[in-house]
Amino acid sequence: MPKPKSRPQKRRRRSIITFEMIQLDRTAAEPLHEQLYRQMRDELKSGRFSDGSSRLPSSRALAADRGVSRSTVRLALSKLHAEGYLSSKTGSGTFVANLLPETFLTANQLQTDESIQRPARVSNRVKAIPDKRTGNQFDLGATGAGPGVSLVASIPAVDEFPIAVWERLRAQILAKKGVNLLRYSSNRGDVDLRKALAAYLCDFRAARCHPDQIVIVAGMQQAMLISAMSVLNPGETAWIEDPCYQQTRRVLSLAGVKVVPKPIDAQGIVIARSPKELLPKMIYVTPSHQFPLGVTMSFQRRTDLLDFARNHNAFVFEDDYDAEFRFVGPPLPSLQGIDTAGRVIYAGTVSKILCPSLRLGYIVAPEHLVDAFVKIRSAMDQHSSPIEQATLARFITEGFFLSHIKRMRKIYAERRDFFIDQFNELLGDRFTLQIPEAGLNIVAWLKHEEEFETIKRITSEIGVRPSALSFFCIQANLKPAFVFGFAAWTRTQIRESLIRLASALRNHDQNSNHGRQSR
Amino acid sequence: MPKPKSRPQKRRRRSIITFEMIQLDRTAAEPLHEQLYRQMRDELKSGRFSDGSSRLPSSRALAADRGVSRSTVRLALSKLHAEGYLSSKTGSGTFVANLLPETFLTANQLQTDESIQRPARVSNRVKAIPDKRTGNQFDLGATGAGPGVSLVASIPAVDEFPIAVWERLRAQILAKKGVNLLRYSSNRGDVDLRKALAAYLCDFRAARCHPDQIVIVAGMQQAMLISAMSVLNPGETAWIEDPCYQQTRRVLSLAGVKVVPKPIDAQGIVIARSPKELLPKMIYVTPSHQFPLGVTMSFQRRTDLLDFARNHNAFVFEDDYDAEFRFVGPPLPSLQGIDTAGRVIYAGTVSKILCPSLRLGYIVAPEHLVDAFVKIRSAMDQHSSPIEQATLARFITEGFFLSHIKRMRKIYAERRDFFIDQFNELLGDRFTLQIPEAGLNIVAWLKHEEEFETIKRITSEIGVRPSALSFFCIQANLKPAFVFGFAAWTRTQIRESLIRLASALRNHDQNSNHGRQSR
Repeated sequence: MPKPKSRPQKRRRRSIITFEMIQLDRTAAEPLHEQLYRQMRDELKSGRFSDGSSRLPSSRALAADRGVSRSTVRLALSKLHAEGYLSSKTGSGTFVANLLPETFLTANQLQTDESIQRPARVSNRVKAIPDKRTGNQFDLGATGAGPGVSLVASIPAVDEFPIAVWERLRAQILAKKGVNLLRYSSNRGDVDLRKALAAYLCDFRAARCHPDQIVIVAGMQQAMLISAMSVLNPGETAWIEDPCYQQTRRVLSLAGVKVVPKPIDAQGIVIARSPKELLPKMIYVTPSHQFPLGVTMSFQRRTDLLDFARNHNAFVFEDDYDAEFRFVGPPLPSLQGIDTAGRVIYAGTVSKILCPSLRLGYIVAPEHLVDAFVKIRSAMDQHSSPIEQATLARFITEGFFLSHIKRMRKIYAERRDFFIDQFNELLGDRFTLQIPEAGLNIVAWLKHEEEFETIKRITSEIGVRPSALSFFCIQANLKPAFVFGFAAWTRTQIRESLIRLASALRNHDQNSNHGRQSR
Repeated sequence: MPKPKSRPQKRRRRSIITFEMIQLDRTAAEPLHEQLYRQMRDELKSGRFSDGSSRLPSSRALAADRGVSRSTVRLALSKLHAEGYLSSKTGSGTFVANLLPETFLTANQLQTDESIQRPARVSNRVKAIPDKRTGNQFDLGATGAGPGVSLVASIPAVDEFPIAVWERLRAQILAKKGVNLLRYSSNRGDVDLRKALAAYLCDFRAARCHPDQIVIVAGMQQAMLISAMSVLNPGETAWIEDPCYQQTRRVLSLAGVKVVPKPIDAQGIVIARSPKELLPKMIYVTPSHQFPLGVTMSFQRRTDLLDFARNHNAFVFEDDYDAEFRFVGPPLPSLQGIDTAGRVIYAGTVSKILCPSLRLGYIVAPEHLVDAFVKIRSAMDQHSSPIEQATLARFITEGFFLSHIKRMRKIYAERRDFFIDQFNELLGDRFTLQIPEAGLNIVAWLKHEEEFETIKRITSEIGVRPSALSFFCIQANLKPAFVFGFAAWTRTQIRESLIRLASALRNHDQNSNHGRQSR
């Protein structure tokens, strides 16, 4: 019911607000204009003046009345304006705004539910990325491997990482370079790190590169994303291995790339002829040690692949994620080292060699692509942590990197051998192991294919969590197998896990035999 | 000239290779198979057997001859196979490969130049990203601000960052959480950090959010990229402010987004009507403190913007990069806090508050977008450093964050006031300062527009390096001005820099007056 216009209460509101309650304290640390602003705001917030016709005194009058300068008053008023408590009408002065912020807040609250229920609108890109699955419905991303969970694939033994050495080097480099490590830094990466990596890669991976070809990145996935975004237009084709590291497909989908899976044979990726529309602009491979099958790409296949890339103006992305952990002889030379036509984009990471949480990797780019890669990185997220980069540079140049690799190679080789021994003893009746020459994983093929679903369920239940090989397959239809990780667990843990698995399987057999017999 | 088939030398080569030079040392640390592999490889590398018809002895014969097991021989041979030194012909045994790796290397060398000269093929995306320019042809990305260079815009005082405290907290958290911080971690970000940020943002930015709405990212650019990739399809439109933070346009281009610049007036971004094809799916704004003009978005404009977003099914990206450094009163409440329809994507960074090298930022996502953001992050580069995240969580919960902000606000306010005093005294005849209520920068408008090119050149020469305002403009045609950074320099440095600029300008005036007079 509208109130009659003549009510005295209404008339009082229309009058000029006097702000009699305001108390300014000239001895306080808070500046006068802030005190004024705060107290006026509290008055206005009370809602007594919220009908839009209450006028404020002029700044001159307010200043005189409160004994402060006009600029103090203006500062307070401009803030109240900005926050929506006041509005100005030209020629008529300043009024209390029709809609006070708090009122607005309450009013809008009512619309919340209706508006939020509108279905979420996400881009096609989000939908195009395959969901992150895990071999056993277990989120590796969140925990690496949770307590009581074992034999998960691709997990390095981070408890062996010499974190104390790392922190000591970090302190040294911080003491030496100081605030220079706190600023924005190069999009390419730390120059000392690029030099150290170039030397390492030339010596130990037979790469042929100059430090200026190296771009430091935040791990293997960013290396892939930057490369894909730099050389492929959305909708163009990349070939990947099938089976393949699951993140590869997700990263390439994010880049808007069409992903075509290619099978693996004993020599590596099969470069069969394709219809012209499926010819690749990039071919993703793991030549040192195919993930997850463990095949080392043959020399013949390497040269065929490079010829193919050259002839089709394509790039080869060499993911050299764990070449360092080769148990049979020294690591094979990289593809990058035998590429003389600038077609190989080489990428490595310290996630497996040192630990994943450093979030550091590197690209060795063909010279003519370096600028494009750096440009993408600078637009994407600027650069990696300068402190971590400088620490890694020191870790390499002072010899800790090589000695850690050497030490871990020995530990992993022992664990691999122990795993093989124990596995064959305890589970040799059900699986045939494929002995890997490198890496952190072992493929175990089922002798009785029909046991697959049972084993998958039981491994998931008992916390011994190899990935089903099929988890890494796109179109490949391989015989059933599981990929076990052996690297992150001690002998005791390995033996205990395998005993647990073997007895769970035996129990299941007995129960189902019993079940069958009693029926 | 082909050699006659009957030459004795040829016949000798066709015979079985005996590897007489091989010396195996049973006491060496190097395994026998590695010694065998290495020495056989050296023999083969010598090139004496490289014509493709030299056959190897059987593994049985070789094993017997050298007194080693057949498995030792097989390991060595398989490696030589993999590396391309050997090839097998079914039924005929093992031969020296036609093309030895080293031969291949040399042969290919000749093709290098021709192949590399092919023009670099980079994606359209790379070309679409505007080049990274700087206000004064000076690469901020590489150095922040080099020695002897001053008054660069947007540089925080990293020398005031309490790095010793940070490192102490880091050591504490490492001691407490140990190897758990070395593994892969959550794509969303550290849960303690998300809780600490949610509490901070609700208390000090008047945000309304739950820790589950927070996604930790590697800085503001990644926040933008993830948001753009999550809600826009390639080719769809985003509005940005004009003038604008230059990286915004680059990030959105990387996401394949069409960027439409919108002018700024005294209330903030102007939401004028647009042709339907230019309607935005995302609107990028800096409401607390427009970069670089410093305008605070009015309350009316905020509500208009949110209404517009709701009515057009668009999202507002609120870049709240330096709201903490407000000198007039407490920071204004965020847009996010008054959005009740899930249309605001709020993003912050510690690059200005703490220091850029931490590479940490955060998104407060509308609830229905959180999963999409996390999915994009997991495909992009997994997650940020768990150690740095945990350290930041502790830095916030133990009160260092707030006390650092408070301390820096005081330092910056003093530097701002000192800059204004000195600037007006020394350069007041040429510039009119626009006093900022917040942030690290001050806009100085030219009184004599024709001096622009001269001042631009001179600032570049003498190492006092404000950015030309035009550098941040896309279509906006503003009066000539420079954006000075005052935050990262001491009083002495500020005064010295302004004296240097004033006297360089005076010298230039005198020289050109003199030149004119003498002509």
